[in-house]
Amino acid sequence: MAHSHPLSILSIEETNLARDVVKAAHPNVVIDFREIFLQEPPKPQLQEFLALEHAGRLSPTTPRPPRLALCQYDVIGADRIPQFHESVIDVVSQSRVKHTVVGTEHHASLTLNEFDVLVDQCMKSPLFQKALSEFDLPEGFEVVIEPWPYGGLDPTDENRRFFQGLCFAQDKRSGNEDSNFYSFPLPIIPVMDAHTQEIIRVDRPATGGKGEGLLEQTFKRDIIGHCKPSEYVPELLPEGLRQDLKPLNVVQPEGPSFRVTNESLVEWQKWRFRVAFNPREGATIHDVSYDGRSVMHRLAVSEMTVPYADPRPPYHRKQAFDFGDGGGGNMANNLSLGCDCLGLIKYFDAIITQPDGTAQTLPNAICLHEQDNGIGWKHSNWRTGRAVVTRNRELVVQFIITLANYEYIFAYKFDQSAGITVEARATGILNVVNIDAGKVSEYGNVVSGGVLAQNHQHIFNVRIDPAIDGPNNSVVVEESHPVPMNAVTNPNGNFYQITKQTVERASWIDAAPQLNRTIKMINPHIKNPISGNPVGYKFIPLATQTLLADPASVQARRAQFAQHHVWVTKYREGELYAGGRYTLQSQTEVEGVADAVLRGDSVVDTDVVVWNSFGITHNPRVEDWPVMPVEIFQLMIRPADFFGANPSLDVPSNKNLSSRLADAECCRKAHI
Amino acid sequence: MAHSHPLSILSIEETNLARDVVKAAHPNVVIDFREIFLQEPPKPQLQEFLALEHAGRLSPTTPRPPRLALCQYDVIGADRIPQFHESVIDVVSQSRVKHTVVGTEHHASLTLNEFDVLVDQCMKSPLFQKALSEFDLPEGFEVVIEPWPYGGLDPTDENRRFFQGLCFAQDKRSGNEDSNFYSFPLPIIPVMDAHTQEIIRVDRPATGGKGEGLLEQTFKRDIIGHCKPSEYVPELLPEGLRQDLKPLNVVQPEGPSFRVTNESLVEWQKWRFRVAFNPREGATIHDVSYDGRSVMHRLAVSEMTVPYADPRPPYHRKQAFDFGDGGGGNMANNLSLGCDCLGLIKYFDAIITQPDGTAQTLPNAICLHEQDNGIGWKHSNWRTGRAVVTRNRELVVQFIITLANYEYIFAYKFDQSAGITVEARATGILNVVNIDAGKVSEYGNVVSGGVLAQNHQHIFNVRIDPAIDGPNNSVVVEESHPVPMNAVTNPNGNFYQITKQTVERASWIDAAPQLNRTIKMINPHIKNPISGNPVGYKFIPLATQTLLADPASVQARRAQFAQHHVWVTKYREGELYAGGRYTLQSQTEVEGVADAVLRGDSVVDTDVVVWNSFGITHNPRVEDWPVMPVEIFQLMIRPADFFGANPSLDVPSNKNLSSRLADAECCRKAHI
Repeated sequence: MAHSHPLSILSIEETNLARDVVKAAHPNVVIDFREIFLQEPPKPQLQEFLALEHAGRLSPTTPRPPRLALCQYDVIGADRIPQFHESVIDVVSQSRVKHTVVGTEHHASLTLNEFDVLVDQCMKSPLFQKALSEFDLPEGFEVVIEPWPYGGLDPTDENRRFFQGLCFAQDKRSGNEDSNFYSFPLPIIPVMDAHTQEIIRVDRPATGGKGEGLLEQTFKRDIIGHCKPSEYVPELLPEGLRQDLKPLNVVQPEGPSFRVTNESLVEWQKWRFRVAFNPREGATIHDVSYDGRSVMHRLAVSEMTVPYADPRPPYHRKQAFDFGDGGGGNMANNLSLGCDCLGLIKYFDAIITQPDGTAQTLPNAICLHEQDNGIGWKHSNWRTGRAVVTRNRELVVQFIITLANYEYIFAYKFDQSAGITVEARATGILNVVNIDAGKVSEYGNVVSGGVLAQNHQHIFNVRIDPAIDGPNNSVVVEESHPVPMNAVTNPNGNFYQITKQTVERASWIDAAPQLNRTIKMINPHIKNPISGNPVGYKFIPLATQTLLADPASVQARRAQFAQHHVWVTKYREGELYAGGRYTLQSQTEVEGVADAVLRGDSVVDTDVVVWNSFGITHNPRVEDWPVMPVEIFQLMIRPADFFGANPSLDVPSNKNLSSRLADAECCRKAHI
Repeated sequence: MAHSHPLSILSIEETNLARDVVKAAHPNVVIDFREIFLQEPPKPQLQEFLALEHAGRLSPTTPRPPRLALCQYDVIGADRIPQFHESVIDVVSQSRVKHTVVGTEHHASLTLNEFDVLVDQCMKSPLFQKALSEFDLPEGFEVVIEPWPYGGLDPTDENRRFFQGLCFAQDKRSGNEDSNFYSFPLPIIPVMDAHTQEIIRVDRPATGGKGEGLLEQTFKRDIIGHCKPSEYVPELLPEGLRQDLKPLNVVQPEGPSFRVTNESLVEWQKWRFRVAFNPREGATIHDVSYDGRSVMHRLAVSEMTVPYADPRPPYHRKQAFDFGDGGGGNMANNLSLGCDCLGLIKYFDAIITQPDGTAQTLPNAICLHEQDNGIGWKHSNWRTGRAVVTRNRELVVQFIITLANYEYIFAYKFDQSAGITVEARATGILNVVNIDAGKVSEYGNVVSGGVLAQNHQHIFNVRIDPAIDGPNNSVVVEESHPVPMNAVTNPNGNFYQITKQTVERASWIDAAPQLNRTIKMINPHIKNPISGNPVGYKFIPLATQTLLADPASVQARRAQFAQHHVWVTKYREGELYAGGRYTLQSQTEVEGVADAVLRGDSVVDTDVVVWNSFGITHNPRVEDWPVMPVEIFQLMIRPADFFGANPSLDVPSNKNLSSRLADAECCRKAHI
C-alpha cells in the first residue's frame, strides 16, 4: 500500500482493515460499529514528520508516524446490553494498540441507525399509539417522528441510553414527501430505552400560553386544526417564486488560483495547509503556513450546543451537542455543484462507517473555492488622482451539516492579507412545538398558526492550536484603557493606554469590548524586526451572550465551555472537544475545556491551545419561518506584527475586464 | 424646467441658479462659495408628496414641495475677514427664503481650496522655511504638506480659523509622483490663520520614545536618515507583484436585476428606494419600502470622528470629523469600472460646488451593483435527501471617500430577506509621525523605520429615520436575562426571560451583548397577525469600544455622539448630524445628538430617529503598513415580525449553471 500523508483521512481500505482487526479481536459477539476514523498521530511524531516535509527532506525511507484508526463500537453479548468499546488499530501493523471499555457513565454518540430504530419502535408501540389516539388528525395526515438525543438526565432517570422523538404530522395529500411537517407539531414525546429498544414512556408537554402552568394540559383533540401549511419547497409555494432575479455567474476563465495535491494539501496565494475530515468535527485544517512560515498546527470547530429555554417539562431536556452527540462530520451534506458555492469548485469526499464497520464514501462532503469579498485595500493620492485598489480574494473551505431541522454552514476562509476567518451560518428550520389557538407565550414566538418557536441559544466553540513561527507560543491579553487627564502623562485627556498581560496559567477570559480586549497568540522568542513586538496572530472575541441557563442546571453543567468566551489550555494529546469527549446524555462536562483549565498548567512559551466560544441568543422572529435566512458569525483571526508589512501589498491591482456598465438596459431616464 | 423629484439632487442648472440668487443678494462683495446642495423639503410636505406618489396619484398639477438649495459661503468685505453665511434659495421662485449669518463661534467646513492655500503659504513662509532648515533632507527629497483641520482649540488659542499641516518628505528621484511620502515624516507642523492666510507658528512635536517627556526634543538633523521607502504603487514595489492570481469574473448575461428610473429611484427584488447625495454625508438613502410597505424614511452615515491618542502636543489636536470637517461627499472618489466592484455597475454622478459657486459634476461618485453573499437559506430533508438552497443576493450602494491618508468604503446593502446592512470598511494609509531611530513608544506602533503609527479610534455614526409601516414609531429595548432556578417558573434552570422596555424619552442606550440587548424600531399600532407582536425592524448594536478620551477633554466634549452606542431622539427638521452642524474646530458638540437627547422629548409613537455609533480602537499593526487591509464593520438591520414569513422564501433555488468542477487542472493526485 502506498503511504498516505499522516494527516490524510483513512482510506476505504484502511477503514475496512481496521474493522477486520476489531472483529478478529472480538470473536463470538455482535459488533455494532459507530465510527472508524483517523486518530491523528501523536503530536511529537507528527511534528517531526512535518518538519522534514517542510524542509523538503522526506524520502521513501523517512520514518513515518503510526497510521492509527480510532474505532468506536458496541459489543453486544448474550445479555443484549451493548457495551461501548474504543480500540485504536495500527493499520500498517494491523494490530490493536489500545483498547478501552468505556464506562457506563458515558454514552457513545448517536448513529442514524439508532434513529431508525426509534421511529420503528414508536410505530409498533401500543403506548405511543394510545397517545396518538387522543388526537384527531385530519384525513391525509400522517405522523412523523423526529428522533432527538434525550438531553441531560432528570434526577428520576436511571442512567440508561435514551432517545426521544419530537412528533409532527405531515400532510400527505399532495403526494410530496417534502411537504413541511414542522408546521404541524404534536404535543407528545415518546422516549425509548435504546438498549431494550422499548418505548418506555410518552411525555406530554403543555400546549398553553402566557399565565398557564408548566404542566397544565389544555390541548384539544383537534390538535392541528389551528395549524397552517408552511411550505418551502418551490413546487408547493402557493404564490410561486419571484421572477425578476437574473443570473449572476462567477467565471474563472484561466482556472482556479489554488492547487490541491496529494489529496489533502492545498496551496493558494502563499497559504499552504491540509484539509482533513472526521465524523465528529467535519472539516479540519492542519499545518497552516503563510509564505513558508508556520501559523497554526490545527483549526477546527470543536463543539456546539443548542439549549432551549422553555421550562415546561420535558422541554428542559431539549439541548443538543451537535458535534458530540451526532457528529458534525456524520451529518455533513453532500454538496452540489451550482448550489452551495459559485465558480470553480473542488470537492473533497469523506469516509463514514456503516453499522457493520464497512467504509462508505460520503461524496462532496467539503467544498473548496475562491470568492471575491469586495475591496482588499485602496488608496487614492488626492494630489495626483492615482488610485491603487485591490480586490479581497478569499479561499473558502466549506461544509454544511443538517441536524434534523437545523442547518449550519461552516467555512474556513483564508485571505490574501494572511487573515483566517472562521464563519458559522445558522439556517434551516426552527425547532417548534404546538401552542393552543390564539395564545402567545413567554417561552418563544408564535411563527405560524399553532406553532411556537421556542427561545434558545446556539453556542459554538472553535479550537485553535496555534503554531506562530513554531510550536511554543504564549497568549497575551491586550486591552485599551482610558487614562484620567493629568498634567504629567495626559495633559489634554486624549491619551489612552494599552495594557498587555501574558496568560500565565490555563484559564478562561471573557470578551470585553468596552476594553477592546484582544487575544494575541505570540511567539515570545521571535520579535518583529520593525516594531520590536513578538510576532503574533490576534482575534477580538465576539462578545456574544454566553449560556443563560442557571449555572446549577444540568444544561449549564454539561456545557461549561459555553459559559466563557475564551479558554487557554496547555496542549494535551487527544484533547479536542470543548464539551468533553462524551456529550450524549451527559450530566456534566467531563474532560472538556473547563476541566482542562482546572489543571492549572503553565501556558507560557509552550504548546498552548486557544478555544473561542461564541453564538447567538435566538429568540425567533416570524421571518425565521419556515426556513430561516442565514445568521452569520465570524471569528476573525488576523496577523499582528507577524509580517514586515501588509502581506497583500503584492496583490495585483489590475482592472477586472469583465465588469460592464449597467446603464443601457436597466436605467431609463424619465421625469415625472 | 421639468420637475425633478423632491429628493433628487440639485441639477447643474439649479445649482448655478442658486449661485446667481446668492450673488445678487450680496452686491459689491466677494463671495467665496463652500457648498450648494439640496435642502431636503420639510418632512410634512415631503411625506404628503410621497404618499401621493406611492398611491400612484401624482399628476403634473400635484402641488410639489419647495425645491430648496442650501448655500454656504463666505462673504468677504473690505476688512478681508470672511463672514460665514447660509442662505436657502427657492430655485423655482428664484428667491431667497432664509438667510443666516453664522456666529463666529462656528466654523464652516473646510474646502480643498483652503488646503491649497495652506500649502502655498507654507512654502512662502520664512517661519516654515526656517523650521525646515533645521533638517538635512537627502538629495532628491522634497517636502510635502498634508493639510489637516486644526482640531479642538487649545486654551491659549484665540478662536480664529486655523489649519495645520502634517509634513513629510517625498523621494522625487524615481520621478514617480506617487512615491509614498508618508514613510518619511517630518516633526514640524505649520499652523495657518486662514483669515490672514499667514503661517503663525510651526509646532515641533517630540520624536522620542518610551520614558521620554512629552515635550523633549531629541531629533537629529538627519531627520529621515533612519526612514525607509514603503511603496504601494505596483511599479515601485521592489519585489514586484504576485503572479499566481487568476481572474475571477462576475458575469450577468441577462443584465442586472435592478432598475433605476427617474435618475434616483432604485427598484430591486421588492425593494424600492431613492439614492441621493450631498457633500456632507455622501450617498443617502430615502423612502425605503419592501413589497410596498414602508421601512425607512431616510438612512445615512451621519458623522465619524478619528481622535488620536498621542498626548504629546500638538498631537492632542489630531482629531478629524471627516463628515463635518471636510464632507463625506466632497471627498468621494470617482469610482472606476472593474476596480471598485465587479459585475454590472450603475454609476451615479454627483454635483459639487466650485469656489465661484459654479456647479461641477463629480462623475461616478456612487456605484450600484449586485453581489452574491453565499447561501441565503438552506434546508435538507434527511428523510428524502432533498435539499433546497438559495443564494443570498445583495444590492449594494457604495461610495468611497479619501481623507488625506485614509480611505473609507461605505455601503448600504439590501438583501432578499428584507435586511439592510450598513457597512464601513477602513483602509488607506495610517497617519504617522517621526520617531527617533531604535525607539519604541507607548503612543503607537513602529510600522516602518522611523515611522510611528499612533494609536487612534475611528467612530462612525449611522442615522436611521425609521418609518415602519408609517411615520410614527416607537423604540423597544429587548434583552434576554437569566432567571435563577426556582420551583415555580424555572424548575430545571433552563428558562431565560425576555424583557421589553419601550424608550419613553429621548435618551442614549449602550450596547450590552451580555444581555443580548436588541434595539427594535416598531409601529405600535400594527400587529404582526401571526405572532401578535408589533411589526418592527431590529438591530443589535455592535459593542465596539466607545470614545476613550477623558470626558472632560476637548476631544471628548466635541464628540459626545461617540460616547454611547445608540441614541433615540424625536425627529426635528434639519437635525441630521450626530456631531453637530459645525464640527470644524469645535470646542464642544453643539446641536449634535447629545443635545437632541437633552430636550427629553417623548419618543413614543411619534416620528422617532435612531442613531448608532460604532467603531474601532485602532492600535496599528505592522501589517497595516503602508496601506492597510480593510477592517470591516457591519450594522445589520433586520425585520423582526414585520413580515408573515421569511421574505426570501420565494427566491428561486435554481442551480447556477456556470459553476464548474475544478478537478481537472489544479488538483493532481499524487502520493509522497
